[in-house]
Amino acid sequence: MQKKESKLIILGIDPGTSITGYGVLEVNNRDLKVLQIGVIKLQKYDDHYKRLEKLFERCTQLINTYKPDEMALEAPFFGKNVQSMLKLGRAQGIAMAAALAHGMPVAEYSPRKVKQSVTGKGTASKEQVAGMLQKILNFKEIPQLLDATDALAVALCHYYQRDRPQQEQKSWKAFLANNPDRVKG
Amino acid sequence: MQKKESKLIILGIDPGTSITGYGVLEVNNRDLKVLQIGVIKLQKYDDHYKRLEKLFERCTQLINTYKPDEMALEAPFFGKNVQSMLKLGRAQGIAMAAALAHGMPVAEYSPRKVKQSVTGKGTASKEQVAGMLQKILNFKEIPQLLDATDALAVALCHYYQRDRPQQEQKSWKAFLANNPDRVKG
Repeated sequence: MQKKESKLIILGIDPGTSITGYGVLEVNNRDLKVLQIGVIKLQKYDDHYKRLEKLFERCTQLINTYKPDEMALEAPFFGKNVQSMLKLGRAQGIAMAAALAHGMPVAEYSPRKVKQSVTGKGTASKEQVAGMLQKILNFKEIPQLLDATDALAVALCHYYQRDRPQQEQKSWKAFLANNPDRVKG
Repeated sequence: MQKKESKLIILGIDPGTSITGYGVLEVNNRDLKVLQIGVIKLQKYDDHYKRLEKLFERCTQLINTYKPDEMALEAPFFGKNVQSMLKLGRAQGIAMAAALAHGMPVAEYSPRKVKQSVTGKGTASKEQVAGMLQKILNFKEIPQLLDATDALAVALCHYYQRDRPQQEQKSWKAFLANNPDRVKG
């Protein structure tokens, strides 16, 4: 997965079956540029299956449009509710498959890891993450929906992490052992 | 989704991140023929993400080989363990996306519905399901791994159900309301 080219495009995704955030980050040597940021609104579809179909379509569109080299997913591993976790798992699987269908490597990071990587603090709020991204990436305005900045944050986290050993996504057990407090409501 | 052609190929999938069963059923008018049945063994890969990658590859291979018209998934909606449900959701999402990438419609059925449809009894054992499939589809031998027969069973269930209103996959809420006892351990 380690690439030598100086230019790299990372598609960050924060998957969910109501709203999925995305951020496309271009890295040119050490120059960072936001190519696109936004959300895929899925709550307008009552049918769960239709939501997954649309999610796959939109992820595929993003890949075809921006031709990212790698995908980075924000992926909580814990939850209080088995039904919501099954749905979240499906959304994650759909987003991953859109990448796999294009031969793109996928990395995943816990919300805590993303916050820690971007702000230096694993317990940072979404607003703090958005504020730090604004500084680092020279945004003019913070998008209204913080799912979009969350997705951009995971792309940036992946850029920071990709030249280091990525133990987190290698072992489910190690992740669980290291993150006993990951809870997605 | 209702098709008028007399020939129809259904890919049945029983997704899991350790073993995924599959069964390919051809329906020619009312003549039923098993084109293939088997399992995708994923437990040999320690890395969870590698499992999903292999699952996507193998589902895609099956689709390219047998050119099924529709996919039917066995999909429990409830579980005791949030981690196992997240993993199961990912496996389901990956299998669904392999179908979506080929423009195939996907239907999903609970284990109870599959058993009820094939044997007349929602609480039938896996062995009873396999035995009934053997009678209906003229198997010579029952495959050793019952994940394979489970997958064939969901394909057959889909054939039985597809000309009826498919309320089950239309509404998550209705499904939950109608199936308070669905538990996947």
